[in-house]
Amino acid sequence: MKFYDCITAPSPRRVRIFMAEKGLEIDTVQIDLASGEQFSEAYRKINPDCVVPALQLDDGTCLSEVLAICQYLEELQPEPTLFGQTPSERALVTMWHTKVEQQGLLGMMDKFRNSAKGFKDRALAGPDNYPQIPELARRGRQRVEACHRKLDGQLADSEFLVGDLYSIADITAQVFVDFALRGNVPIPDGADNLRRWYESVSSRPSAKA
Amino acid sequence: MKFYDCITAPSPRRVRIFMAEKGLEIDTVQIDLASGEQFSEAYRKINPDCVVPALQLDDGTCLSEVLAICQYLEELQPEPTLFGQTPSERALVTMWHTKVEQQGLLGMMDKFRNSAKGFKDRALAGPDNYPQIPELARRGRQRVEACHRKLDGQLADSEFLVGDLYSIADITAQVFVDFALRGNVPIPDGADNLRRWYESVSSRPSAKA
Repeated sequence: MKFYDCITAPSPRRVRIFMAEKGLEIDTVQIDLASGEQFSEAYRKINPDCVVPALQLDDGTCLSEVLAICQYLEELQPEPTLFGQTPSERALVTMWHTKVEQQGLLGMMDKFRNSAKGFKDRALAGPDNYPQIPELARRGRQRVEACHRKLDGQLADSEFLVGDLYSIADITAQVFVDFALRGNVPIPDGADNLRRWYESVSSRPSAKA
Repeated sequence: MKFYDCITAPSPRRVRIFMAEKGLEIDTVQIDLASGEQFSEAYRKINPDCVVPALQLDDGTCLSEVLAICQYLEELQPEPTLFGQTPSERALVTMWHTKVEQQGLLGMMDKFRNSAKGFKDRALAGPDNYPQIPELARRGRQRVEACHRKLDGQLADSEFLVGDLYSIADITAQVFVDFALRGNVPIPDGADNLRRWYESVSSRPSAKA
């Protein structure tokens, strides 16, 4: 297997944290997003969507999308589970993963890609160019703040997003909160549950991944 | 269990098709999105995100997000599988489901919600109001067209999105193509693979769901 990574980008970091939690070490290739290596002919053959992360299996099959890659790695090495122990726990993990990805991470991507100077015409990742929409950057920030509040509410009564199980949903949320911090959207004042959880997940050895 | 549905909306239809393929019949409650029933206090208690579909389990747990609901139903009734038979097949199903949801369906949602007259300040589903961004409607259409082309390419060499397995990825794509048709974005000329596949999935009894 070969893992296609970029050490500076938030999406592949989710898989790196996942692998660290599992104790998995996989042959890793860095793709230099800053110089546009994701658009090279060689990488397009691996992932025509021109994004990282990607995981190439030994039979040549190429997986992209964080959830798909992590699901495959979970099957490869089930312990410790990061997807849940029972059908309803597993469904709640998928639910929270999806909510944080679509409401939080995509909101933060909107904020970042529609305002960063270096991302002119790169408002969306992928092979096609799309011009920046400044209003979308503003809306992205509002969505990030709404997601912070949602996570704070969910963490009021439980250690992690799904009860006492540390899961892929927490990894997605951790990378979201970190990405927001880097983009100057801090954890809001009074979001004490979110802050307590964030300190907890950030103190795990996997947070260095 | 109780399934919260809205017969006119694309997202819950994905679950209805999934249930039809499994032969599952679940007690169903219609939520009238047109009159704003999703914002009622009663429904907010079931799903604070104020969207359908939702699945309430007998212990009161409420699942939202199509993938989470369908994953739960797959575990409840594994045959016929709509998620795949092997780890790599399952990962490819998740991958294609995610791509079509985020690139196709979310693109079509952008197009529809940012241009429809009745959706002023409702550019995103959920409890918060966001004003329409006309540029986002235009971008949404471009993304739908790009997704059509991507699906056509993927279907050049296989019956369904993941080889010869009809899966939840096909259901997501079918509802995406139908939603685009209703929003005046047809299957493009020359996309013969996509058209052949669309006729095939549309002729299944579950398409009536």
